[in-house]
Amino acid sequence: MRKTAVRIAVIGAGSAEFSAGIVRDLCVCKGLYGSHVVLMDIDEKRLDMIMLLADKIARELSASITFSKTTDRREALRGADFVLNAVQIKAGDLEGHEWVELQRAIAEKHGYYRGAKLHYISQTHFMLELAQDIKKICPNAWLLQSGNPVFEGCTLMYRATGIKVIGLCHGHYGYREIAEIIGLDVDEITARSVGFNHWIWMTDFRHAGKDAYPLLDQWIEDKAEDYWENKSNERTYSDIQLSRAAVDQYKLFGLMPIGDAPRQVGWWYHTNLAAKQKWFGESGGFDSEIGWQQYLDDLELQLGKIDNAAYNSDVRATDIFEPQQGDEQIVPLINSMVNDIPEVFQVNIPNTGHLIEGFPEDLVVEVEALVTGAGINGIKMPPLPATVFAGAMIPRWREAEQFVGCMQYQSYNLLLQFVMGDPRTRSKEQAERMIAEWLDNPNNTRLRNYFK
Amino acid sequence: MRKTAVRIAVIGAGSAEFSAGIVRDLCVCKGLYGSHVVLMDIDEKRLDMIMLLADKIARELSASITFSKTTDRREALRGADFVLNAVQIKAGDLEGHEWVELQRAIAEKHGYYRGAKLHYISQTHFMLELAQDIKKICPNAWLLQSGNPVFEGCTLMYRATGIKVIGLCHGHYGYREIAEIIGLDVDEITARSVGFNHWIWMTDFRHAGKDAYPLLDQWIEDKAEDYWENKSNERTYSDIQLSRAAVDQYKLFGLMPIGDAPRQVGWWYHTNLAAKQKWFGESGGFDSEIGWQQYLDDLELQLGKIDNAAYNSDVRATDIFEPQQGDEQIVPLINSMVNDIPEVFQVNIPNTGHLIEGFPEDLVVEVEALVTGAGINGIKMPPLPATVFAGAMIPRWREAEQFVGCMQYQSYNLLLQFVMGDPRTRSKEQAERMIAEWLDNPNNTRLRNYFK
Repeated sequence: MRKTAVRIAVIGAGSAEFSAGIVRDLCVCKGLYGSHVVLMDIDEKRLDMIMLLADKIARELSASITFSKTTDRREALRGADFVLNAVQIKAGDLEGHEWVELQRAIAEKHGYYRGAKLHYISQTHFMLELAQDIKKICPNAWLLQSGNPVFEGCTLMYRATGIKVIGLCHGHYGYREIAEIIGLDVDEITARSVGFNHWIWMTDFRHAGKDAYPLLDQWIEDKAEDYWENKSNERTYSDIQLSRAAVDQYKLFGLMPIGDAPRQVGWWYHTNLAAKQKWFGESGGFDSEIGWQQYLDDLELQLGKIDNAAYNSDVRATDIFEPQQGDEQIVPLINSMVNDIPEVFQVNIPNTGHLIEGFPEDLVVEVEALVTGAGINGIKMPPLPATVFAGAMIPRWREAEQFVGCMQYQSYNLLLQFVMGDPRTRSKEQAERMIAEWLDNPNNTRLRNYFK
Repeated sequence: MRKTAVRIAVIGAGSAEFSAGIVRDLCVCKGLYGSHVVLMDIDEKRLDMIMLLADKIARELSASITFSKTTDRREALRGADFVLNAVQIKAGDLEGHEWVELQRAIAEKHGYYRGAKLHYISQTHFMLELAQDIKKICPNAWLLQSGNPVFEGCTLMYRATGIKVIGLCHGHYGYREIAEIIGLDVDEITARSVGFNHWIWMTDFRHAGKDAYPLLDQWIEDKAEDYWENKSNERTYSDIQLSRAAVDQYKLFGLMPIGDAPRQVGWWYHTNLAAKQKWFGESGGFDSEIGWQQYLDDLELQLGKIDNAAYNSDVRATDIFEPQQGDEQIVPLINSMVNDIPEVFQVNIPNTGHLIEGFPEDLVVEVEALVTGAGINGIKMPPLPATVFAGAMIPRWREAEQFVGCMQYQSYNLLLQFVMGDPRTRSKEQAERMIAEWLDNPNNTRLRNYFK
C-alpha cells in the first residue's frame, strides 16, 4: 500500500521565499520522486516566477518531481495528499504586507503601538475557508500550515472542520543560536522546547549529554552585558534569541523562551520604540518599525534573488539555492509519512491526550512528535513549571481562545473581549472605536458582516 | 456507624455576623443536637460576646448544642469533624477591615483605584496555615470555607494539602432578586448557576418549569431603563443583581452573571467612581468608596445588635435572631452529611472529573453537588458557551492561577505576573513599586520574606 508518489498543493505559492525553499527541498528528496506539485496563487506574476524556478531547479538536478500551476484553489486541492498553506492575505490593491501595515496604522490611531493583531483576522478567515474546502475536496489530506498565526489558525481549522492539520515553524531551532553565542558546538547540543507556536520554552538543554543551562547561566553572569553592549549599536533585527528581553524573560519565568517567543512574551518590553530598543537593541527587534522595515527590505532582496534565479538564463538556479535540504521541516516530514521513516519533528498539533497538561485537548500545542507511515503521535511532555504555566501560558491561551472563538462563532463580543484583554486598552469605547474603524475600512468588505 | 453528634470548630468566630447566624442555625437544627461547637478567635472581646450569645440562644431554644471557646487554633481543631473558617486577618493594631483599607490605599498610590487585591495575600496565607494544621490535627475533617477569597483560597488549600475543602457562599441566590425585581413569584422559580466563586453564570432560569430568560429579556427591553432611573438616586450599595453593569454583562457574555459576579466581572465598569456610578447607580456599587463605607456601617450596626442580644439581659436573643434556618448553607450541609439526608447544594469543590470542561481538575469550581452521608458528589455541567468560557472564565482563571501559584510556591515572579495582569498596570516598574511598598509596610512583617 505504500504510495511514494504523492500530490502536493502549495497554496499561496507566490510567497516566493517560502516556495523557493520548498521546491528546492522537494527536488533533493529522492524519496518523493515521482510526486506532483501544484503551485497555486492568485498573483499570476509571482506564480509564473515560482513555476519557472521550480522547473529550472528540477531540470538542473534531474529531479523527477513535476510541477503545475493554477490560480484556482479548488483545482489545486483536487486529489491532494498534502496541502501547504503559506498565504499572506492581500486586500484590494494592497500587497499582503501593505495590508498588514494599514491595519497596524488603524490600530495605532487608537493607542495600539505596532498594531493589535487585527491582521490575524483576515489570515484566519482565509484558513477557515481553505480548511472547509479541504474537508470537501481532499478530506484525507494533511494540511501543513506555515502562514501565521499558526497557533490560532491551526486551532481554528481543527475545531471548525476536524481536518488533519499540522503547524510547522522553525523557531525551535533558536537553541542553536544560543549554543553558538555562548560558544558551544551546535553538533553536541540537544534541546527540547514546548508550548504554543511562537510561545515555546526550552524545557531541556544539553551539551554532550549534560545539562547546559548552568553554562547559559554562567554566560549571562559573565558575558551577557558585554555582548549586549557590543550588539546594541548594530541595527539588526535578528538578535532576539539572547536579547536583554529574552534573558529577562528567562529570569522571570524560569525557562528560556525560544525562537519567536522572546519577541512576543511580555507586553512591557514593547510599550514604545524606546522600550523595544532598551530590550532588543538599536533596531528595537523584529517587530519595531525599524526591524520590520529591515525584514521587508530583506524580503525584497530575496525576491530579486528568486527573480534572477528564475528568469536569468545565464544563472543556474542551484547556484543560488544550494541543492541540499534546508531547515524547513515540511519536506522531511512528508517524506517520513510517505516512506514510513520514523523521525521526531517539532510540530503544532491538537493537544489530544493532554500532551501539555492543563489545556484542552482541542487546542493546538507545539510539541515534539514521532512521525511515521502511520501518521503523527505527539510526545507527552512533563508539566511546565508554574511560573511558565500560570505566568506565561495561560495569558497567551486567554488571547488565543478569545480570538479562535470570535472567528469560529463569528462573535463580535469575543472579538471585543480579545481587544479588551490587550494591556493597552483603557476603556470599552476605545476598543469598540478601533474595531469599528477597522471594519469600516474599504479593504474589509468581506469581513464587515462576518461578526454578529 | 452514624455519628449524629459531631464536633464543629469555628475559626474566626469573632466575625460576629457570620457566627451569630451559624449559632442560630445550629440551635434550630435538631439533627445535630448533641454536637459540640468550639468557638475560636484571637480577639477575646469578640469571642466572649459570641460565646455569650451562643449560650443564650441555646438556652432560649433548649437546644442541646454545647459551646466552648478558645483563643488557641490548634486546640479548637482537635477532634473536629467540621471546621468553619470565617477569618478576616488583622495586622498589628488594625482590625481586619482597617488592614484591607490600608492595603487598598497603598495600591491606590500606585494607580490601582480601590486596590489590587493585595489583601487576598494575608487572607490566603492564613488559610494555608490553617489547612496545614487541619492536615496534622484533624485530617478527616471537612473545612467549610466562607471567608474570601473562596475561589483562590479553596484551590490553594486543596492543592497544597489535599484536605477536604468546600467553599460556601450565598451569591447564587441572586436569581431570587432577579425574580422579585421582574415580578415573578420566587417560589415558582428554579435556577442553576455555575462558574468560579463570585464569578458564576445563570445557565438555566425557569418559571413554573418554563425558560424564564425571555421574561428577563422582556423586562430589560420594557422596564430596565425606568428601574435604573428610579434606582439611580438611591445611595444603596446592594442593587447589583440587575444593575446596568449586570445587564451589560449579560449582553456581552450571553448569560446572566449572578450574585457577586456582576460586582467583579469587567474591569471597565470600575475604572473610577464616575464609571462605577454610571454602571451601579449613585452609590457606585458595593465596592466603591461609598458602597463599601455603607457596608462597614451596616456591619457596625449589626455588631451593635449582636452586642445587645448577647449582653442585654432584658432582651431575648431569639427575638433578634429569628429562630429559623437562614440562607447560609453551612448547617444544612453538615446535617445532610451527618444524617445522610441527600440534598443538592451550591458548593465550591475541586473540578474532579471536569465538572466544568476546559479547566484543570485541581481547580476549585462553583457547581451544584449532591451531598449525602457518603460525602459530596459534584454535578457535571454542560459546557459553558464560548462567550462565557473564553470571554469571562479564562481571564478569571488566569488571575486565580497566578495568585494561587504565587502563594503555593512562594513565587515573587508569579505575584508580579498577577499584578502585571491587572489592566491598570502600565509598566513592570509600577507593579514592582507597589509590591515593594506593600511588603515594606510594618504590618507585613510575616509576609516580607515569604516570596522568593
